[in-house]
Amino acid sequence: MSTQPATRVATSEFEVRTHGRGFIDIGDALRRALRESGLREGMALVFTRHTSCSLLISENADPEVRADLERFFARLVPDGDPLFRHDAEGPDDMPAHVRAVLTGVSVNLPVRDGAYGLGTWQGVYLWEHRSAPHTRKVSVTIIGF
Amino acid sequence: MSTQPATRVATSEFEVRTHGRGFIDIGDALRRALRESGLREGMALVFTRHTSCSLLISENADPEVRADLERFFARLVPDGDPLFRHDAEGPDDMPAHVRAVLTGVSVNLPVRDGAYGLGTWQGVYLWEHRSAPHTRKVSVTIIGF
Amino acid sequence: MSTQPATRVATSEFEVRTHGRGFIDIGDALRRALRESGLREGMALVFTRHTSCSLLISENADPEVRADLERFFARLVPDGDPLFRHDAEGPDDMPAHVRAVLTGVSVNLPVRDGAYGLGTWQGVYLWEHRSAPHTRKVSVTIIGF
Repeated sequence: MSTQPATRVATSEFEVRTHGRGFIDIGDALRRALRESGLREGMALVFTRHTSCSLLISENADPEVRADLERFFARLVPDGDPLFRHDAEGPDDMPAHVRAVLTGVSVNLPVRDGAYGLGTWQGVYLWEHRSAPHTRKVSVTIIGF
Repeated sequence: MSTQPATRVATSEFEVRTHGRGFIDIGDALRRALRESGLREGMALVFTRHTSCSLLISENADPEVRADLERFFARLVPDGDPLFRHDAEGPDDMPAHVRAVLTGVSVNLPVRDGAYGLGTWQGVYLWEHRSAPHTRKVSVTIIGF
Repeated sequence: MSTQPATRVATSEFEVRTHGRGFIDIGDALRRALRESGLREGMALVFTRHTSCSLLISENADPEVRADLERFFARLVPDGDPLFRHDAEGPDDMPAHVRAVLTGVSVNLPVRDGAYGLGTWQGVYLWEHRSAPHTRKVSVTIIGF
């Protein structure tokens, strides 16, 4: 354990265009934000300003993992479930909110030696839960030195 | 991306009185904590010191969304489920712990220009999972400048 | 609310040897990381570099709570579910990824007066989701003063 110099904050934002329900790897945008920050040790908060998409860390090698996640959540939170009364925007409206609550709208990442301290098989994804394409805003806050 | 001055920590706590199972908007208490911190850019950790309530971000416009979330979780994690052996405090005891694990006891918020960097439709809620009223402790840690 | 001196970062890592599916209390390792950091006020990010185990906060008094969590997730995400196509490593392969997505690979903890600001009944656990033993890497990032 080593204690380090005084820390600074770096903030940035980017947009993600989604193509309806599915996963989008946001690793490139996150690496650019870190590189431009000039920070090398600390932590990052990645946050999306919506309630019907998620940010999450998942396996990045086999695309079938994301397909299985989609199949699992489609069964767990069915579109058009008569349980749901909030359906003004269609059968995927409330399921999108439930999925976002179950999987979260932010991820926290360690920063080590100028890179994210992720494992080999960890990717960071924006998960669009709505059937239609959307433009999603993501903010990055990095604190460190 | 811009890198900013050295950061400081601001800490505070507040209590939330719940009325049994349901959502309580904690936005006012969070905005007060930020205002009193004097910090304008950075990140905030909001944390509750319990294992049977949650903190979460959800849609803030239509109360039916929270009602649907409650209905969904009541079906997913049924009170009195014979699967559960930990029931010393009643049929809602273990379901409250499962709900807290599924939805989390903390939220992380970006801070931008002296406000939380939330989307228009995002609210921050304490979700009481027990049937009886409780007094819940929430801590706020803001790091920034 | 009080605003504090400039903050510093302390980083460390440790490994957890698991014995197949189950919970391991990582409180001792976390307290050691905090003690060695010399920091007393701020926040900590605890992060595991894997996609088939979780970090979570749960009830620490009655071991039956963890047994009930295990029973609940075994029913919610069944091993060998024919829904899953990603099964190269066995019937527990994809369920481990789903469990990790549902419960998260990091926890954020407030730091107060040289200790974690946890409630009396809150413990921090690594939850192994694979049937076989693994060695899991956990990183700790503490920012504060």
